[in-house]
Amino acid sequence: MSDYPSILLEQAVNQMASLPGVGRRTALRLVLHLLRQSDPEVETFANAFLRLKKEVVYCKECHNISDTEICPICSSARRDHSTICVVENVQDVMSIENTGQYNGVYHVLGGVISPMEGIGPKDIEIDSLVERVAKGGIDEIILALPTTMEGDTTNFYIYRRLQNAQSSNPQIFESSNLKITQIARGVAVGNQLEYTDEITLGRSIVNRTDFNG
Amino acid sequence: MSDYPSILLEQAVNQMASLPGVGRRTALRLVLHLLRQSDPEVETFANAFLRLKKEVVYCKECHNISDTEICPICSSARRDHSTICVVENVQDVMSIENTGQYNGVYHVLGGVISPMEGIGPKDIEIDSLVERVAKGGIDEIILALPTTMEGDTTNFYIYRRLQNAQSSNPQIFESSNLKITQIARGVAVGNQLEYTDEITLGRSIVNRTDFNG
Repeated sequence: MSDYPSILLEQAVNQMASLPGVGRRTALRLVLHLLRQSDPEVETFANAFLRLKKEVVYCKECHNISDTEICPICSSARRDHSTICVVENVQDVMSIENTGQYNGVYHVLGGVISPMEGIGPKDIEIDSLVERVAKGGIDEIILALPTTMEGDTTNFYIYRRLQNAQSSNPQIFESSNLKITQIARGVAVGNQLEYTDEITLGRSIVNRTDFNG
Repeated sequence: MSDYPSILLEQAVNQMASLPGVGRRTALRLVLHLLRQSDPEVETFANAFLRLKKEVVYCKECHNISDTEICPICSSARRDHSTICVVENVQDVMSIENTGQYNGVYHVLGGVISPMEGIGPKDIEIDSLVERVAKGGIDEIILALPTTMEGDTTNFYIYRRLQNAQSSNPQIFESSNLKITQIARGVAVGNQLEYTDEITLGRSIVNRTDFNG
């Protein structure tokens, strides 16, 4: 499949095929499906992504995607604000919320440390996590990152950063007695949280263990 | 996966999941991928579909997608304009072109007759095919529709329509000696042309047989 009968068609296929996991043949099929829809339908399709990109807000507290400056979870009085669950991304927040096993708040890193992909600690929301903890009032940090090498590296890095913060600001942490835990390794090693079944994921929140750096 | 943290995100996921074969979980992954791209990249993505929908042209001769009123194949002097290959869609034109076995022109029906899906002869480009043949100068019609029940029904319907046109306008057809053929049934029964390997598809063009309604 190479010679497209139209440059406009080829450009649309190129864009669709730029999505991860979408090959050129599938992209062509999806674009021709779109082309069979009405003008308003195609406009609604395209505008949904333009609006999301232009108007999306990240919660100032937890950095999750939100429609407001502070997301509903962070602004809820019914959530336990002394427990922060550290996750890689938005999907992980949704997955944990779906288990119904967690009532604390979140901190969305937006990635994990990955030297292979050139992602360092400064590229993800670790500084803001340390600042959040340094403000006081946090009793527990639950590390709920993927059980991969990158996740483990990030867990360890966050543990060290929090230890350093504790030793340089003992007056904050003395009163709060901060506990750092990680989700139980019921989650199969090498898996993404997003694809873990709800029972396993829920249990791994309940059976979280102390983190031994 | 139900409660999205943002309505904008949910709307974008709904749109992505409206594409055939894209589930909600995959849609979320694709949307979050888009969200990580730059503003201009997302604009290029969305605009490719808007432009295609607004500016797309269908060739007045063969009804294939085109950038010009008459597509490059129909306007080429090096193609044999006395042979028309009737196909279901754009992908089929691209697949046959890729075999390098065909030098005639095409007629893109834009579908096949399917009572189950409510697609009748008037919903696809059959009238325009009969008109094209009635103008004269056509020696052969190659029926290259999918080897499905719908494809066979459409083959048979086109055959009858062309026979009727011949008997009501004998003066046109007397001189031209119109032959109606179909691609050899080397294509596995039940398959779409789009997914047939090039060798089988190429051979089926070369070994086309007379159509015996």
